Amino acid sequence: MKYDRNKVMIETVKRLLRRNAGHHLRKIVNKTHAADLARIFYALPLAQQIKLYGMISDVEQRGILFSELSEIDHTTFLSFIQSLNIDDIVPVLEDMASDDAADILGMLPEELSDTLLKKMKKEGSEEVEGLLSYGDDTAGGIMVPDFIALREDMTARQAIESLQKEHVDVEMPFYLYVTDEYGKLTGVCSLRQLVVVSPQTPLRDFMSTDVFSVRTNTDQEDVAKLVARYDILAVPVTDENNKLLGIVTVDDVIDILREEATEDILKMAGAGAGFVETKSIYKSTRIRLPWLFASCLGGLAATLIIGGFEESLKKIAALAAFIPVIMGMGGNIGTQSSTIVVRGLSMGVLNVRDVWAVVFKELSIGLLLGLVYGTLIGVVAHLRYNMFQLGGAVCLAVICSMCVAALVGSLFPMIFARLNIDPAVATGPFVTTAIDIVAVFLYFQIAAAFLGI
Amino acid sequence: MKYDRNKVMIETVKRLLRRNAGHHLRKIVNKTHAADLARIFYALPLAQQIKLYGMISDVEQRGILFSELSEIDHTTFLSFIQSLNIDDIVPVLEDMASDDAADILGMLPEELSDTLLKKMKKEGSEEVEGLLSYGDDTAGGIMVPDFIALREDMTARQAIESLQKEHVDVEMPFYLYVTDEYGKLTGVCSLRQLVVVSPQTPLRDFMSTDVFSVRTNTDQEDVAKLVARYDILAVPVTDENNKLLGIVTVDDVIDILREEATEDILKMAGAGAGFVETKSIYKSTRIRLPWLFASCLGGLAATLIIGGFEESLKKIAALAAFIPVIMGMGGNIGTQSSTIVVRGLSMGVLNVRDVWAVVFKELSIGLLLGLVYGTLIGVVAHLRYNMFQLGGAVCLAVICSMCVAALVGSLFPMIFARLNIDPAVATGPFVTTAIDIVAVFLYFQIAAAFLGI
Repeated sequence: MKYDRNKVMIETVKRLLRRNAGHHLRKIVNKTHAADLARIFYALPLAQQIKLYGMISDVEQRGILFSELSEIDHTTFLSFIQSLNIDDIVPVLEDMASDDAADILGMLPEELSDTLLKKMKKEGSEEVEGLLSYGDDTAGGIMVPDFIALREDMTARQAIESLQKEHVDVEMPFYLYVTDEYGKLTGVCSLRQLVVVSPQTPLRDFMSTDVFSVRTNTDQEDVAKLVARYDILAVPVTDENNKLLGIVTVDDVIDILREEATEDILKMAGAGAGFVETKSIYKSTRIRLPWLFASCLGGLAATLIIGGFEESLKKIAALAAFIPVIMGMGGNIGTQSSTIVVRGLSMGVLNVRDVWAVVFKELSIGLLLGLVYGTLIGVVAHLRYNMFQLGGAVCLAVICSMCVAALVGSLFPMIFARLNIDPAVATGPFVTTAIDIVAVFLYFQIAAAFLGI
Repeated sequence: MKYDRNKVMIETVKRLLRRNAGHHLRKIVNKTHAADLARIFYALPLAQQIKLYGMISDVEQRGILFSELSEIDHTTFLSFIQSLNIDDIVPVLEDMASDDAADILGMLPEELSDTLLKKMKKEGSEEVEGLLSYGDDTAGGIMVPDFIALREDMTARQAIESLQKEHVDVEMPFYLYVTDEYGKLTGVCSLRQLVVVSPQTPLRDFMSTDVFSVRTNTDQEDVAKLVARYDILAVPVTDENNKLLGIVTVDDVIDILREEATEDILKMAGAGAGFVETKSIYKSTRIRLPWLFASCLGGLAATLIIGGFEESLKKIAALAAFIPVIMGMGGNIGTQSSTIVVRGLSMGVLNVRDVWAVVFKELSIGLLLGLVYGTLIGVVAHLRYNMFQLGGAVCLAVICSMCVAALVGSLFPMIFARLNIDPAVATGPFVTTAIDIVAVFLYFQIAAAFLGI
């Protein structure tokens, strides 16, 4: 993928800003989709961001810019929005979908968001306040109240008429939800069905009663998985009495899925949970520092273990030469195992309850791969130093290290998942470090036994 | 996330199969969504899969089952479909969306897919054959011909009438595409606009001409990014003359995004590109074996390097004790850097052309983190062995190893991306191994210089 266009755009905008070419800038800014503008924005200093923002004439584009900026980089967005006039923000929030406005307000300092809510038109601010009362990462926090709900005793003809009159402002009428007299969700039907059945049929006679729904407190990741799994475009959100309150639409689901994938990947690498590349060098360093501490402690523990074998090393210095390969093979197969398990759990392909089956399989694979590479490396060791015992010790150490790594790499994420701790964290530096220590320890124990040192 | 329900279902189905409780089974099978059935299927032996399949009465559910099974596990799916009767498959393919049918046929051995195509009704098979002619991972390969295209000289009223008469079978009329007399895509409008404007207005007067589109040969990942970035529900696909041929819908985009994220994660861990956990032990071993070879070769190279310092090691055996911590610190910061760069590129937050800015930043972070941990580990080395030179050498080696790791970890994926090679591959065992070798080499060079050995 290339985003060269961005680069060119940024250069152009910067040049025009230097030249103060207001007319040109205004044209570019209003011709560019706000999702692209956001990428230009975060490459500019604050003063220039505000200048460009003032040139955006369409309030909807301003709203998209808010959302996009806040997704790319919280910090940049916060300093940007806090330096705007309150009166410049309010109309934008009013125009935004209420779930997006709630997202933005949820990020701001409480004082500012209270001020903004007070200034917003009553209708909009009540919707937003309602959404703010739900957890950020729950279905309630991401739903929109923009849905079409029809009573089950309506006829198909009445339904069509009501769609033409009342629901003209629902931009995307994916599904027509059907409710009973108390507003409880009882079914769903499609536009197509309305046209096909005879006009006098009440909705209850042809609606599908098999409707997926989630609760306001359902975790957003679970909502996303539901939508992805059943290929639906929106999922209705209900309260504990099954009363229909809103829908979560597929565009938000896409954002959630990407966000969660990024979080998983970064956690596995021990690089924080949010994207740090857009932060300053100092901030990135601070975020990454603690993750490396586990690895540092583990390395020092290995130092102590090896230090205990100083005399043996003086006799057979060749022992030291195989430390890297034994650690490396263990580390790499451990990463394979834990990555497969973490991703499998998150994709729903693996089940937390299958812990022993999964671990047994990984251990078997570790043993097979250990036999292959242990033999290979053992033979090399024997040929290189012409010491059969050294070859044997190295071979066995590789096998042990790879088995332990496959075991630890698969078992830890499974246990974490079972304890409801994010398994992605378990595959980071912690597991790698644990494997390193055990591998070095076993190697020297085995070598001592084989070589009689 | 828990999918305990699956586990319970699988147990229930197995029990009923043992008891031969056909009536019960049939009820369960037809009450369960095919996406869930697929998860039960792949836990069952082939004979039982076929038995259950025969019980599914709805041809649409059979189609969903095909798609889901093939997504979860190619191998299971292939042996399953090949043991069905041709006449049991044909009606299912005819009923499926043509892009999904093309996906299935593309997976089958050519002989079988030819036989199936010949047996299918002409209309369906031509659509599918058309799609099969495009690359599997391109917009052409995933588009559906199920779109609404209206002529730009139509009035709003004519458009509404045509929607009610001709396009009743388009289940989800997201966008109404507007074409000129040659079928070229010229604009897009929404259902809502049709109702709001005066009925005599021709489409060309109110349609939006700013319509995103992709070519049939656009990479599916780029299509997915476009849809995700601009929050649209479908993107039109055109040929090189801008003639509208199909649309890619958001449900397919979700599948692509999840697939690509999984692929990235697995490649980074050197665990193949597809999900291997569902394969047999033997097959998983075979897939993972070659990825570990790089690590094995690298480890053996490190062996040679250390072997060259055998005499130094005999004098100062403590040198060996710090090999793990120097390798570990390098490996971990290298993984951080490459993960951040790979994910940043794939999210579009980093730009391939910013290679020097990105690498400089990572190098700075590597240096800062190196200074912190180098000092810490160097002080420990000095205190433990009471040798100032050893402490100094270890300190400098940690700094160098972390700088090199940050450099290699960020530079390689950037270079790969620029050469249009998937950067995720670059972060796998190859980078880790390269870092290991360089770290060990530098460590012994520095130690030799500091300690005069």
